[in-house]
Amino acid sequence: MSGQFSYLTHLECGRCAETYDATRLNGTCTSCGAPLLARYDLTAIARDCSPGSFIDRPPTLWRYHELLPASSREAIVTLGEGMTPLLPLPNLGRALGIERLLVKDEGGLPTGSFKARGATTGVTRAKELGVSAFAMPTNGNAGAAWSAYAARAGLQACIVMPEDAPAITRRECSAAGADLYLVDGLISDAGRLVGELVARTGWFEASTLKEPYRLEGKKTMGLEIAEQLGWRVPDVIIYPTGGGVGLIGIDKALRELQELGWISSEKLPRLVAVQAAGCAPIVEAFEAHAADSRPWQDTSTIAFGINVPKALGDFLILQAIYASDGCAIAVSDDAILAESLTLARSEGLVPCPEGAATVAAARALRRSGWIADGDEVVLLNTGAGVIYPETLPVRFEPVARDGRLPIQPGVHEAGM
Amino acid sequence: MSGQFSYLTHLECGRCAETYDATRLNGTCTSCGAPLLARYDLTAIARDCSPGSFIDRPPTLWRYHELLPASSREAIVTLGEGMTPLLPLPNLGRALGIERLLVKDEGGLPTGSFKARGATTGVTRAKELGVSAFAMPTNGNAGAAWSAYAARAGLQACIVMPEDAPAITRRECSAAGADLYLVDGLISDAGRLVGELVARTGWFEASTLKEPYRLEGKKTMGLEIAEQLGWRVPDVIIYPTGGGVGLIGIDKALRELQELGWISSEKLPRLVAVQAAGCAPIVEAFEAHAADSRPWQDTSTIAFGINVPKALGDFLILQAIYASDGCAIAVSDDAILAESLTLARSEGLVPCPEGAATVAAARALRRSGWIADGDEVVLLNTGAGVIYPETLPVRFEPVARDGRLPIQPGVHEAGM
Repeated sequence: MSGQFSYLTHLECGRCAETYDATRLNGTCTSCGAPLLARYDLTAIARDCSPGSFIDRPPTLWRYHELLPASSREAIVTLGEGMTPLLPLPNLGRALGIERLLVKDEGGLPTGSFKARGATTGVTRAKELGVSAFAMPTNGNAGAAWSAYAARAGLQACIVMPEDAPAITRRECSAAGADLYLVDGLISDAGRLVGELVARTGWFEASTLKEPYRLEGKKTMGLEIAEQLGWRVPDVIIYPTGGGVGLIGIDKALRELQELGWISSEKLPRLVAVQAAGCAPIVEAFEAHAADSRPWQDTSTIAFGINVPKALGDFLILQAIYASDGCAIAVSDDAILAESLTLARSEGLVPCPEGAATVAAARALRRSGWIADGDEVVLLNTGAGVIYPETLPVRFEPVARDGRLPIQPGVHEAGM
Repeated sequence: MSGQFSYLTHLECGRCAETYDATRLNGTCTSCGAPLLARYDLTAIARDCSPGSFIDRPPTLWRYHELLPASSREAIVTLGEGMTPLLPLPNLGRALGIERLLVKDEGGLPTGSFKARGATTGVTRAKELGVSAFAMPTNGNAGAAWSAYAARAGLQACIVMPEDAPAITRRECSAAGADLYLVDGLISDAGRLVGELVARTGWFEASTLKEPYRLEGKKTMGLEIAEQLGWRVPDVIIYPTGGGVGLIGIDKALRELQELGWISSEKLPRLVAVQAAGCAPIVEAFEAHAADSRPWQDTSTIAFGINVPKALGDFLILQAIYASDGCAIAVSDDAILAESLTLARSEGLVPCPEGAATVAAARALRRSGWIADGDEVVLLNTGAGVIYPETLPVRFEPVARDGRLPIQPGVHEAGM
């Protein structure tokens, strides 16, 4: 296969369609403030590549480099991220009455969450375009990921997270050498602090959707799902939605694949945004058929990654839901905790709370009939359960080293 | 490609070479008590397959199914494990004076450690051979992995771990539904408790090297390294050694690949067993040119996974070291903690303490000249740093939500 490494052509505002030069460092649209989207020469990609082009490439998300923004292989800042498993869940599927149920398990990515996808593309481009230091607000996992990739690239990271964010992510940021600040508030408060810093110092701002390339990494979840299913799409994709970049990215990926002719143009999956009952601005907007969301007051959920009162890309999330005939649904913290164990015990996969929320959503949507007989459903587990140990129950019995295990013969026996 | 799914033929004692029927459930050698090793019809594999056979298979360790013990694809109990990244470490390599330094990063495997490799093969075979419940001692990570795969397979797991084992692994076992016991002692005490249970009840014993198939999963680290390097081997592989199954497995894999003719028969990597200064029975034996190790008294190390006073397979570890012209080396806990940060800050990879121990060993062996100019060196990071959060320092500044970040302009600026 010949051709360019990347077919990136320009950036385009996701709201007003104004275009920007992709060889320069850009933030949001200078006209309307909306996120910028990377655009590619899809006609040329369709000419130079095919699904077969990817078969013998290493199993990282950079296998799709034509559809990604790095200008060369040498420019890539990578920790080997991507091609996470798409696992059938036969036991849970039977329990929920969803025969074809799968999970895309993102817990094995570097730093333990899907945030590594956005960090590899975001840091790669920041470095390529001359950034030496950046600042970002985070609910924890994105900070851990961007700190790691910043260390790999030799950039300085300034991370601002709520003091209630998962404690392990603090350690990940610190270990990787980031400057870490904890705010007595929410990610929106962290975002304001970063905004003030950026305005005052000229640091680069890597907030969600305030730079265009994180989205491109998240997009690869959609590319991988399509490839792993043999270049077709499922009926439903259920995604835990805070900032919503993953959902926007999956939608963007599948539309690019349609335009390339690599998946059928007839069907896109119905996209489901799952939120926590204690922070559900997208659900509220969806139910009101609104184009944008309103900031949620007094947010609260154990699924900390989706505790986002107002997403910058809310209108893109809602567009993707409406266009795909999808929906938005809120689930309770109790349901999230319960489904975390359901998934762990039935399939051996210990999800993060955000991932468990997709199980709760699948159960509710199947019960209501929104998920129909025979639908193929993909859940996104966006991170490893171990990042949130306090959400996992622990039960054990102590036993003395000179004692014996209190188990009687005959309860379980080897099958010989 | 035609051919069988697995070319497993029989089991063979690693000490006395007595053979056993692989279609039956076996533990250790009934003659001498040593571990049994799986043997394959390598001649037939060489006839039916080639390195090219693997190119278009999914990126899990089961891509090597001909060299693995599952009798069919349907029998496999999998969570999508394998094909972990083999990452160049240019920054750390420069600092250590090792130009070609790489790490095999096992932190992204299900349950966050390389133990998933042994669990997928061990649980697959246990289930195939009719086991419905098993018991095992563990230093934490193996228990977490085997609990997960047991849940996936519908088996009951009884896990016994020291009360000092990493706290997160308790939660992983509990979440997956295992029966968990904590003993006020070491893994050797847990092993005695399991041995008594097994003798009394007939439960299957899944202790390290007391069943033959965990080793086969660990072997795939060697297969993947060879494939990822283009079917050749590095000069040195440095492995954190407790029970030592990974080192034995890598050695076994590379010898099988030599016999298949898929890697050169001229060179095997020098294998290095790294131990903690507070628990170094293999190092002691190596220095005495002994064939076996003696139990280490009063063991102590923060690298909990390698706190193993006496490994059942010690003679196999030592054989592999001697035969490859390798060595064994002990490193201090202080060095482990320091190198954990060295790796995290220079490359963005937060290792587990056992993985950090390999960095300490590489530094010492380069300084002594044992690692020579131009040697290509592969480190094994056997798990994710986040499993051991207490070994990672945390430094942050609190900031009020109505305050500002205490950063002055000009310190770091975007490069535009």
